[in-house]
Amino acid sequence: MTRPKQERAVRTREAILMAAAEVFDEYGYSAAGVSKILQRAGVTQGAMYFHFKSKEDLGRAVLVEQASTLALPAEPAGLQQLIDLTLYLGLELQRNVLLRAGVRLAVEQGEAGLQDFTVYRWWIDRFRAELEVAGRRGDLLPQVDALEFARVLVASFTGTQLMSHLESGRESLPSEISVLWGYLLPGIATPGALARLTVDVERAKAML
Amino acid sequence: MTRPKQERAVRTREAILMAAAEVFDEYGYSAAGVSKILQRAGVTQGAMYFHFKSKEDLGRAVLVEQASTLALPAEPAGLQQLIDLTLYLGLELQRNVLLRAGVRLAVEQGEAGLQDFTVYRWWIDRFRAELEVAGRRGDLLPQVDALEFARVLVASFTGTQLMSHLESGRESLPSEISVLWGYLLPGIATPGALARLTVDVERAKAML
Repeated sequence: MTRPKQERAVRTREAILMAAAEVFDEYGYSAAGVSKILQRAGVTQGAMYFHFKSKEDLGRAVLVEQASTLALPAEPAGLQQLIDLTLYLGLELQRNVLLRAGVRLAVEQGEAGLQDFTVYRWWIDRFRAELEVAGRRGDLLPQVDALEFARVLVASFTGTQLMSHLESGRESLPSEISVLWGYLLPGIATPGALARLTVDVERAKAML
Repeated sequence: MTRPKQERAVRTREAILMAAAEVFDEYGYSAAGVSKILQRAGVTQGAMYFHFKSKEDLGRAVLVEQASTLALPAEPAGLQQLIDLTLYLGLELQRNVLLRAGVRLAVEQGEAGLQDFTVYRWWIDRFRAELEVAGRRGDLLPQVDALEFARVLVASFTGTQLMSHLESGRESLPSEISVLWGYLLPGIATPGALARLTVDVERAKAML
């Protein structure tokens, strides 16, 4: 394949993926029709089937590529970065349609028949890396297990976003993530780290 | 209506509700067919429409009545009871089909088009009552707000059960709720209360 064709294929795939994200975000998985997605992407069924064999294939791509348009920090840097990262995710969930749709599918994937834990595992590993840096710096209490707390954090974040989505269309999400950290930090951070750490949505806005 | 007729109507409603719970738990909302529910309940469509006008009506009933077969403590009694209660819920989620289906619909309700926050509010109020007793006893740290932490706990529990459902069919749920408490308690309980409290699945088994 020549380079222009490759580039066009990449652009087509992206257009379909983003159209699918919009439709899943708006209607949910089971009500999302492939024809609606094709119409929104402005491509033919043949073009879609070159990249995605089925609606399930599209759902899985949106699910596992949910973080692909985020500006995540390149290297783990510890507890402050972990706090900022979760607040940044709260802000992105208000406006990033691929993340919104991917998270919606992660939560409602029983309905989509996907049964895919890999995206949760991916976030657990991402959070764990920050916690391991924090541990090496002596910012974590001795009883904290990085993997265990990373799981607790992904679970708490997931439930918080689910409830905020239902209750306020995610308007309250950043402030509820701040409240969550207020209750979680005393169980994981040393008094010295606690005195230094800031839970501040404004800091996370700088990451947008 | 004479009494035997009333009793029969109550039994019919319950049979339909439980059949709907089984089908929602097994297949999810969108794949659940009314005919499958009728067949399992052994009732006619007419009998169903006397109690529930539509599949949505059935979904809403399973959602809001999810806790109706639980043996919840009659009176709030504080932090130990709150811990035991969450572990008991973890055990019930492994075997109580109405709770399982109601929680599944609460999580996947975007798919069901229900958009109902009342069941979350109900659990928040239930947990808050325990926290208020704990506060009056002096078991909570001064910065703890009972309503705020009740929301954090419902969110964390919801995310924990969602992930455990996906990862292990909820087999790991009671132990993951124990882990969650290990990280939450230092942020809410006084040192005196911490020394007294027990996070123990065996205690919760006595509530079954």
